[in-house]
Amino acid sequence: MPVTELFEQAPVIDDARLQMSGAGRLRHLLTLKGLKRSMLTELLDQSEAFLSPLGNVPVRSRSLAGKTVANLFFEPSTRTRASFDLAAKRLGADVLNLDVNMSSRKKGESILDMIYTLQAMQVDIFVVRDASAGVPAYIARHVLDHVSILNAGESDVSHPTQGLLDLLTIRQCKQSFEKLIVVVVGDIAHSRVARSLASGLATMGVGELRLVSPKSLAPDPADFPRARILHKLDDGIRGADVVMALRIQRERIGNLDGIPGIDEYFANFGISHERMKLAAPDAIVMHPGPMNRGIEIESSLADSPSSMITRQVTNGLAVRMAILAAVSRTVDTR
Amino acid sequence: MPVTELFEQAPVIDDARLQMSGAGRLRHLLTLKGLKRSMLTELLDQSEAFLSPLGNVPVRSRSLAGKTVANLFFEPSTRTRASFDLAAKRLGADVLNLDVNMSSRKKGESILDMIYTLQAMQVDIFVVRDASAGVPAYIARHVLDHVSILNAGESDVSHPTQGLLDLLTIRQCKQSFEKLIVVVVGDIAHSRVARSLASGLATMGVGELRLVSPKSLAPDPADFPRARILHKLDDGIRGADVVMALRIQRERIGNLDGIPGIDEYFANFGISHERMKLAAPDAIVMHPGPMNRGIEIESSLADSPSSMITRQVTNGLAVRMAILAAVSRTVDTR
Amino acid sequence: MPVTELFEQAPVIDDARLQMSGAGRLRHLLTLKGLKRSMLTELLDQSEAFLSPLGNVPVRSRSLAGKTVANLFFEPSTRTRASFDLAAKRLGADVLNLDVNMSSRKKGESILDMIYTLQAMQVDIFVVRDASAGVPAYIARHVLDHVSILNAGESDVSHPTQGLLDLLTIRQCKQSFEKLIVVVVGDIAHSRVARSLASGLATMGVGELRLVSPKSLAPDPADFPRARILHKLDDGIRGADVVMALRIQRERIGNLDGIPGIDEYFANFGISHERMKLAAPDAIVMHPGPMNRGIEIESSLADSPSSMITRQVTNGLAVRMAILAAVSRTVDTR
Repeated sequence: MPVTELFEQAPVIDDARLQMSGAGRLRHLLTLKGLKRSMLTELLDQSEAFLSPLGNVPVRSRSLAGKTVANLFFEPSTRTRASFDLAAKRLGADVLNLDVNMSSRKKGESILDMIYTLQAMQVDIFVVRDASAGVPAYIARHVLDHVSILNAGESDVSHPTQGLLDLLTIRQCKQSFEKLIVVVVGDIAHSRVARSLASGLATMGVGELRLVSPKSLAPDPADFPRARILHKLDDGIRGADVVMALRIQRERIGNLDGIPGIDEYFANFGISHERMKLAAPDAIVMHPGPMNRGIEIESSLADSPSSMITRQVTNGLAVRMAILAAVSRTVDTR
Repeated sequence: MPVTELFEQAPVIDDARLQMSGAGRLRHLLTLKGLKRSMLTELLDQSEAFLSPLGNVPVRSRSLAGKTVANLFFEPSTRTRASFDLAAKRLGADVLNLDVNMSSRKKGESILDMIYTLQAMQVDIFVVRDASAGVPAYIARHVLDHVSILNAGESDVSHPTQGLLDLLTIRQCKQSFEKLIVVVVGDIAHSRVARSLASGLATMGVGELRLVSPKSLAPDPADFPRARILHKLDDGIRGADVVMALRIQRERIGNLDGIPGIDEYFANFGISHERMKLAAPDAIVMHPGPMNRGIEIESSLADSPSSMITRQVTNGLAVRMAILAAVSRTVDTR
Repeated sequence: MPVTELFEQAPVIDDARLQMSGAGRLRHLLTLKGLKRSMLTELLDQSEAFLSPLGNVPVRSRSLAGKTVANLFFEPSTRTRASFDLAAKRLGADVLNLDVNMSSRKKGESILDMIYTLQAMQVDIFVVRDASAGVPAYIARHVLDHVSILNAGESDVSHPTQGLLDLLTIRQCKQSFEKLIVVVVGDIAHSRVARSLASGLATMGVGELRLVSPKSLAPDPADFPRARILHKLDDGIRGADVVMALRIQRERIGNLDGIPGIDEYFANFGISHERMKLAAPDAIVMHPGPMNRGIEIESSLADSPSSMITRQVTNGLAVRMAILAAVSRTVDTR
């Protein structure tokens, strides 16, 4: 059976249930969908406990001592993998880094056999990134009871730790979500970052979510049920409290209607100091990284006091420590 | 001098002697040949001590604390390298993972210079995998007295930790070797797995070893002095207690007389539920991995209760911990 | 702005100042230029403290416990990276190994964004190797106050830890520098090793430094103000106390005037037993590695008692531990 058929059998609602233990605790992290506000709040609170001022010794613990974490990246990544790697090490885990270029991956069975093999080596937690939709949940449905799967980026579907770190960053700057206007700008159609953030914001009761993209990169409205989909940046940014620019794949520029080139993309969809004058006076700027400076964001804006971009990275590590600790506690009942 | 000449100067009997310390203890692990039954039994007993039920915290110790293990893989590997990596970490060693694509490896000197360099960094144990015969012994003949070499796969000649984990798996299921019928099926000619298993089984006094392969993949009988070489699977499997399928390189299929295609290979040499009816009622199924499901083994058979395939992986990690601890004790007299 | 313009704005004298903290301690290690003799002596003394006899348990400490070291290699390396990796691990640091093939590195901004990202993950020390001149200093000018940059090889400009390990090796064998004749042979024009050694030797007050190369690989004399530049090996080696051969890139051989082929290169510029008869009777032989045996050095000479080549490797690890500990102490005032 081809891998796509295998992976896409189950509807997404199952992922939300699948990630919870019988006792209602988080066992896997596959998606932010279905996680209650109380659980998101608890995870954000736990993440705060793993933060220390830059320049101080990082927060460390031995709560994963004796556990083994495997970073299984079927899609290359420097940043997210480094973040998970350090998160696991600072909790005392043994870490196995596997960059798998699975050429023979014609079938889901090859992935499962690799998982079964590593599981038999007593790997406790798998951090999985894959370009195909459905892979993390597919794996989660097949592992032993004491094993946890963390989704580190799944096609254009989901990137839940990114969603959590974005929520944490917004909460740190803005306290309450309910009156907030959040705008995400760029290639919404292909963005797992936008999808996970939208999920989390909806659960937290955000005031308004606006999505701004070129028409050719607009999402299916069904994917973003409560969002306003716009195509003019000025309309989106006006009065916004949080402005997030998404990375645009350079190969998409110039190959799409309405995106004739880099300069035009920046002129129409780039976040700039000038553009930010339309936003709320204390609006913050975010970007999931890595940035294309001068394309989706003005370079000096990315380094300005309103930019939370490096804070997002710091929060990301704290969120990943919190998630590792949370799923590890759940399976500790073994 | 070309590398092949350098490496193949010494007969295999030397490898057996070379791996023992003056006091008769194991210093390197190059081959199972020449290891006495009492030593194999001791290593299997020590491996058992490193096993814990899946889901429990893995057995750990600090017996390699302060030691450095270098995984030197001149041939790519995910599974075996992960197994040695975790084995060393769970014993408290510092681990250096080096995937070396030695393009300039025209001469054995390049390998030795790399070994001398790492040895000068106080690496204590080298885990070596190489596609050329003779490399582990060649290295072992040149290192300092306190350094150990572990063969992690040597051309089609030897894979001693695989042989040990296979022996351990058989011993766990079958207690005694002496009345046992073991059959290995597949590309025997090119299999280091079959050679190391045959060595170990001969030492343990196995009842009967049968090797089943297409004629074009039959081994030199001199390599397997006590085995029966067969070409019909039914003849091999009848009454067998242990049935091991070997991985077949897909590129060999269809390019050899008598192996016209995948379906024909499976029909003639694939291990299936149907075929297993000819074996002993409590026969076990093994495979060194990674499997080609549906080619050398029926997929559902690999996941059935008679399959010991994931247990082999678990045993592999325990065997590697036992070997690391054993050679480390030997050199501790320094 | 293209990367070369960005990186080469500042003169080298700035690097020397840039690497010192306000209190006159070493904060980064970018170059040996500008480091006083007392500081070099202190670093060499500290390196000695990290040496133990081969075969003994290596010297270890917890002085970097809780710190994170990132090995950021934009140019491939096995030896230097392994050396920094083990140095950091033996001091108790968490280590992140990143081999970055930065295809999109059209601008210095991409490097900086990667540094900012890792800095936001609380990386304390960056070990950087890059093929472009100016990268380590460029990074050092942009990091936070508590972060240190260690140059692990910078274009053909600088390789300060190599320079220190060479000084340490010479000091161990020769005690005093002031009457010493040191000769370096090979591709001086492209050698960061020769430049860092020349800097260090000048500071230590070496008697005489001679540089021998084919005319087409002669350096700009301005780069080596106190050295004698020669083109006949016999002239260079006569009476020398220390003879260092440099690695020659094979692709340079046969493509340059005066280097028609390997045999001619060895005949004219190879260090051999025969040639060493012209040197002082107790002269030592050095090579930064990896060697081309039979090209720049006679193979049996590299393995002879006068060769300090593996000792250089051992010293390299000790020097890197001393540097990591030194910059770590400096930033501990935070």
